[in-house]
Amino acid sequence: MSVPQRVLIAPSGFKESLSAETVARSIAAGVRRVLPGVQITAVPIADGGEGTAATLAAATGGVLVPVNVTGPVGEPVESHFARLGGSAAGTAVVEMAAAAGLRLVPRTLRDPGATTTYGVGELIRAALDEGLRTIIIGCGDSGTSDGGAGALQALGARVLDSRGRVLPSGGSALIDADRLDLSDLHPAVQEATLIVACNQHNVLCGKKGVARVFGPQKGASPQQVEDLAKAMRQWARVLGRDGLATGVDYRSGPGTGASGGLGAGLAALGAKLVPRFEALIDSGLAGLDLETLMRGTDLVITAEGAIDFQTPNGKVPAVIAHRAQLAGVPVLALAGSLGKGAPDVHDIGIDAIASIMTIPMNLEDAVANGEQLLIEATERTMRLLLLGAAVSSSIDARRLAVPSA
Amino acid sequence: MSVPQRVLIAPSGFKESLSAETVARSIAAGVRRVLPGVQITAVPIADGGEGTAATLAAATGGVLVPVNVTGPVGEPVESHFARLGGSAAGTAVVEMAAAAGLRLVPRTLRDPGATTTYGVGELIRAALDEGLRTIIIGCGDSGTSDGGAGALQALGARVLDSRGRVLPSGGSALIDADRLDLSDLHPAVQEATLIVACNQHNVLCGKKGVARVFGPQKGASPQQVEDLAKAMRQWARVLGRDGLATGVDYRSGPGTGASGGLGAGLAALGAKLVPRFEALIDSGLAGLDLETLMRGTDLVITAEGAIDFQTPNGKVPAVIAHRAQLAGVPVLALAGSLGKGAPDVHDIGIDAIASIMTIPMNLEDAVANGEQLLIEATERTMRLLLLGAAVSSSIDARRLAVPSA
Repeated sequence: MSVPQRVLIAPSGFKESLSAETVARSIAAGVRRVLPGVQITAVPIADGGEGTAATLAAATGGVLVPVNVTGPVGEPVESHFARLGGSAAGTAVVEMAAAAGLRLVPRTLRDPGATTTYGVGELIRAALDEGLRTIIIGCGDSGTSDGGAGALQALGARVLDSRGRVLPSGGSALIDADRLDLSDLHPAVQEATLIVACNQHNVLCGKKGVARVFGPQKGASPQQVEDLAKAMRQWARVLGRDGLATGVDYRSGPGTGASGGLGAGLAALGAKLVPRFEALIDSGLAGLDLETLMRGTDLVITAEGAIDFQTPNGKVPAVIAHRAQLAGVPVLALAGSLGKGAPDVHDIGIDAIASIMTIPMNLEDAVANGEQLLIEATERTMRLLLLGAAVSSSIDARRLAVPSA
Repeated sequence: MSVPQRVLIAPSGFKESLSAETVARSIAAGVRRVLPGVQITAVPIADGGEGTAATLAAATGGVLVPVNVTGPVGEPVESHFARLGGSAAGTAVVEMAAAAGLRLVPRTLRDPGATTTYGVGELIRAALDEGLRTIIIGCGDSGTSDGGAGALQALGARVLDSRGRVLPSGGSALIDADRLDLSDLHPAVQEATLIVACNQHNVLCGKKGVARVFGPQKGASPQQVEDLAKAMRQWARVLGRDGLATGVDYRSGPGTGASGGLGAGLAALGAKLVPRFEALIDSGLAGLDLETLMRGTDLVITAEGAIDFQTPNGKVPAVIAHRAQLAGVPVLALAGSLGKGAPDVHDIGIDAIASIMTIPMNLEDAVANGEQLLIEATERTMRLLLLGAAVSSSIDARRLAVPSA
């Protein structure tokens, strides 16, 4: 019987509970309780949303650079971007949620027609001013629907109405947008490579556009949703005419609707809209080289707050399992909770799953004790793997000892 | 890589939720989902309490014989005893809880000084009248504290006061007990072998006696507890003088306090008080031959409603793990919940544990969905074992392919 020698731990964070680093550290602790000699490589996986900058800074030996920016409702926010280290030196990671995330919008002020991504532009500007020329903009967990207009303004663009007046901030105002004036754009923007790490299913306009899909959950009334949808259509027209990029379908191009249309706005400055894990993992830009990490690995352990029917749809465990399958490495997925459809993940290369739950408990207690529960669940799971190895090996031994007739 | 060929499933029931048979059947279903070709032997394990007669009847191919008896508060109860089959033919199992269990005592009538084991005696009598001469009496989950006086009366004994009057039923009345008249005892009692399967920690008198330990939880006030303790001391005196057995310490002999003193009462008729799992498993009387079953088994799966710090203290998984250790077979234990101290079970021969919990949920939902949760948990666990076997085997293969330097 042999125990795993090299384990790769590549988990997501547990939404609103544990950061990806904490998840990775807890799993590592659980593994070591049972297999103290195992060689562990921990690679917390960022998904573009909250925590992405911190996760990638930590993973690459980089730093978080603090920047004070304008928040989504106009108040000052202490934000940051990541200056990556190691093989990713020279790359900045701007996490849009750190400057315009839903969490920064007080419940009473949830009007997606009014919130702005201005702070996101300020983060990009700060990164450019530090001399960084590759900037990954992570989308996800946004509290805005301004088509990225605020971000463009922070980078020197002017959004004007038909009479040449500067529009007020927010997505609703874009219904009057007539022209995008890029004459004062920050000079480094065009030298830089901007990569928007986004969900390609999000588009700016139409039935699956940001107004109709995300408006209601960001606090818009039905009327506001319709007004916002109109404003986005107008904004797409303006971007198509005045943007720097050519050949972009701003209305329904993949990712144009990411983070309330931030994707479309940045695309107009020449940013590439890239599927988030392609940008954050496969591109190598964020310092991750999963292919090399998988080599010689006996077991990959991934994790997510909830594993359910949505997991195969591009969540971190699905992405990791896909890479592991290509490398021929078996995959274990741990989860805070195993919801409806969880066993379907066996079809996408996840060999086994386990939950951290131990007793009937409410969500609050599960979240409050998440770290400890995860350590203990990992320990239990490792013991199950060892038991499987022991059973298998004793059967093999018996077969060798007793030649079949 | 080899998968288990022969699996022995030997679980307890989940208290107030799933019978031992349902637990065994659910685990078997979960195993088959992952290992359809595996040879499964399911042996639900009875612990002497509720469900014991049904479990052992089913396990041996025996039957339940219905008997109408007098319940613990005097009302008629539809009860039964088991006539075992197979190698245990000729043995009856009387489950005291089926005639005098706590569940048969309405909350408003919970007076341990008044309830009676008369129905237990009626069950024994019915078994004797069927010609059965080996009778295992399972203790546990009792609602009585009458020192077994009721059971003795049902078998023809008379409990008299100093003036020769028959005492009313219930433990409190025994404070006036003066004589046990066995002249009209059922003639078969002395031909029969009576085995009381009991917890040896339960004694009739003293600080750890039935009145003080179980009185309060069966509904007695502090004064009632003291009166009952006195009555038990008096009862022990009478049994010592008039009982058929010699050399029995009725006050503090192991098991005398089982099921509110039923142990002491039956001991006075010559019954042997035997540790419950010795009686129900090791004696072979109940048709179980774990030693033979363990032979050639690759994996034992046991289970309990809750695995926690109390499990090592003689609960079913501990008992099964002990037998498996002697046979050198690895053990997996599944649980409804894993409570405080659960990992301690690794010290008593349980190799790995897993809970059926998947998401934050309350106890009611866990109980309501227990069967499905258990099937799915078993499936997950089997996949983890297979993953462990696969990892181990791929490492071994690599080692064989690449000779070490």
